[in-house]
Amino acid sequence: MKLRIQKNDFTQALQSVQKVAANKSNNLSSENGLLIKALNDVIEIQANDYDMGIKTIVPGIIEEAGEVFLWDPHLSELTRRINSDEIILTKNESNSQMTIHGGKLTYRYVTMNTEDFNEVEVVEQGYAQFEIDSVTLKELIDNTSYACATDTSRPVFTGTFMDVSEKSLSMVATDTHRLALKSTVLEQSATDDIQAIIPSRLLTEVSRQLPTDVPVVVKVTAVRNYLAIQFGNVYMRTRLIEGIFPDYRRVIPTEFQNIITVNRSEFTEAVERISIVAKDAQYNVINFEIKNNQIKMTSQDPDHGTVEDSVECNMSGEPLAISFNGRFILDLLRHCHKDEIFLKCRENSPMLVQDKDQGNCVFVVTPMRTR
Amino acid sequence: MKLRIQKNDFTQALQSVQKVAANKSNNLSSENGLLIKALNDVIEIQANDYDMGIKTIVPGIIEEAGEVFLWDPHLSELTRRINSDEIILTKNESNSQMTIHGGKLTYRYVTMNTEDFNEVEVVEQGYAQFEIDSVTLKELIDNTSYACATDTSRPVFTGTFMDVSEKSLSMVATDTHRLALKSTVLEQSATDDIQAIIPSRLLTEVSRQLPTDVPVVVKVTAVRNYLAIQFGNVYMRTRLIEGIFPDYRRVIPTEFQNIITVNRSEFTEAVERISIVAKDAQYNVINFEIKNNQIKMTSQDPDHGTVEDSVECNMSGEPLAISFNGRFILDLLRHCHKDEIFLKCRENSPMLVQDKDQGNCVFVVTPMRTR
Repeated sequence: MKLRIQKNDFTQALQSVQKVAANKSNNLSSENGLLIKALNDVIEIQANDYDMGIKTIVPGIIEEAGEVFLWDPHLSELTRRINSDEIILTKNESNSQMTIHGGKLTYRYVTMNTEDFNEVEVVEQGYAQFEIDSVTLKELIDNTSYACATDTSRPVFTGTFMDVSEKSLSMVATDTHRLALKSTVLEQSATDDIQAIIPSRLLTEVSRQLPTDVPVVVKVTAVRNYLAIQFGNVYMRTRLIEGIFPDYRRVIPTEFQNIITVNRSEFTEAVERISIVAKDAQYNVINFEIKNNQIKMTSQDPDHGTVEDSVECNMSGEPLAISFNGRFILDLLRHCHKDEIFLKCRENSPMLVQDKDQGNCVFVVTPMRTR
Repeated sequence: MKLRIQKNDFTQALQSVQKVAANKSNNLSSENGLLIKALNDVIEIQANDYDMGIKTIVPGIIEEAGEVFLWDPHLSELTRRINSDEIILTKNESNSQMTIHGGKLTYRYVTMNTEDFNEVEVVEQGYAQFEIDSVTLKELIDNTSYACATDTSRPVFTGTFMDVSEKSLSMVATDTHRLALKSTVLEQSATDDIQAIIPSRLLTEVSRQLPTDVPVVVKVTAVRNYLAIQFGNVYMRTRLIEGIFPDYRRVIPTEFQNIITVNRSEFTEAVERISIVAKDAQYNVINFEIKNNQIKMTSQDPDHGTVEDSVECNMSGEPLAISFNGRFILDLLRHCHKDEIFLKCRENSPMLVQDKDQGNCVFVVTPMRTR
């Protein structure tokens, strides 16, 4: 094998597959590492573990076809620092040594048997398929997956639920204390309905790779036990979580005593200040007292002191006192974007938070009982 | 007590004393925490632990004199985020509660008995004194203290040696495998000679605080068991390490077989590339082969592969093969600044590295025996 690849192209491709290639969660060497395959006039780089497979195409010149399977933690960093625009990869068929060459640097290392690599299969047709642009998909992932559970005792809650029906696509995640839901309307109906729970940490990796400078078309294909996501030169597939996701629509409150409009950044800064003290309080409790068009917040760190702060707001309904875990409030505020947001409350009931006049993304958080 | 202080002034003063105030290395509450003292028409903030004491003056309005001793990990962050230019600190003499108020935020907390705080004494006259500008002192510290030992088995090597004789000031640190020495000439002779070993981690804190935008005069006073450093509104004192620092002048080689001139950034980049692999090799070994006006570097990570790289150089003398710990070479290169540097070598002997044509700062590193 002999390949000539531009340094920037190679670096980008390695960064793309790196996280999957470096996965040590399993010890089967055949599932770790990466495959560079230069057959059929195209240079592909692949990585594959039990959870996720990724394949990307790198532009370059194939002077001699071939393939190598390697596991090398230095490759990506070394490539990035090579003092040359072009990198040459060579491997003699007679031995298992591969050489990477650029500038005055030469790096030689032993490769593995390519037959031990479990290739990423591309499935063109699953039971359902739809298209979406990369920016919208990234927003759907980023605004929802953060709310999932990290505790693995109930696996369905560690995932984000993808719910597709005709032109409607919703994504939702919950850890049972809070929930995030975002929906969008597809330009064209999906070929069939999809209900899939995708591990949130894999979605984070998908989100990291989705291009946002210029939106590109992403093709999503649902297969029985995995989901394939394809855009540009990249093909990814992620494992699914088996199980039934609870009926999230029933969790979202619809009746409120108070509807509060508040400036997002003023409210966020006040909650951040209170949280400095609240984070050392038990359960990170912040008490909210809403009356006379003002939200007063208090918290107490028993070892140090008590803090209070307040912001102006617009409210309808009676005065209300309610307590929340401050971290949950900060988490959801990070996913609001408009100048003003709505807080919709009822005593002792979950609160609904959303950007003002924007119903396609809602956050629900359960209050704490402090009295 | 009632004080009005500009937020920025208070934040800066808290940042200045914070590291000392937060020191938990001892559990005597009287040595932790900070003292705010507004007596005699001046607002002082002090922190003091066994190793280091610091006192800084904050501009502000004293509406009512008083002092408080407090330990509060939230104070600095909370102050920084307060939504107001002015901060009001109040304490009633009747109880031990202090209130900090700014914007709509109110923070109340319990303070400690000021008599339990061990105040930072200012000594005007020690056994010797000299003045230096803050930029020069910072350079002396930063270019030398990094080379000290982190292993505390031989305490003198965890410090940086300050050697003052008339107008000559040298600072030197070594961990016995490498040494860094930087000297300067003072504008005025010190009032007496100083030989003091200062804990390097305390010097790092001094260096962090020294102003470099505009050089200011720093007054250094040597007292029997500590050193006092005074600049602007800040007064710091650091503990000294007892013991005899070895005669560093004898360690610095003076006879060489080869004098090599090399471009600093080209050489550094090549060593950085080799180090990606070398850091996984035993003892981080990089082999240097210097001949035909070229420095060839190789290293081997037994689990992965071998790497080689080279840079052009100008050399006098015979070819030379010598090995070093790559981390030591990278550390010292970070403290060279000129476009070109000198490497002065002799087989199996320590190498001397310095900026070209600049003898006031030298680095010495001992080779490794690999054969």
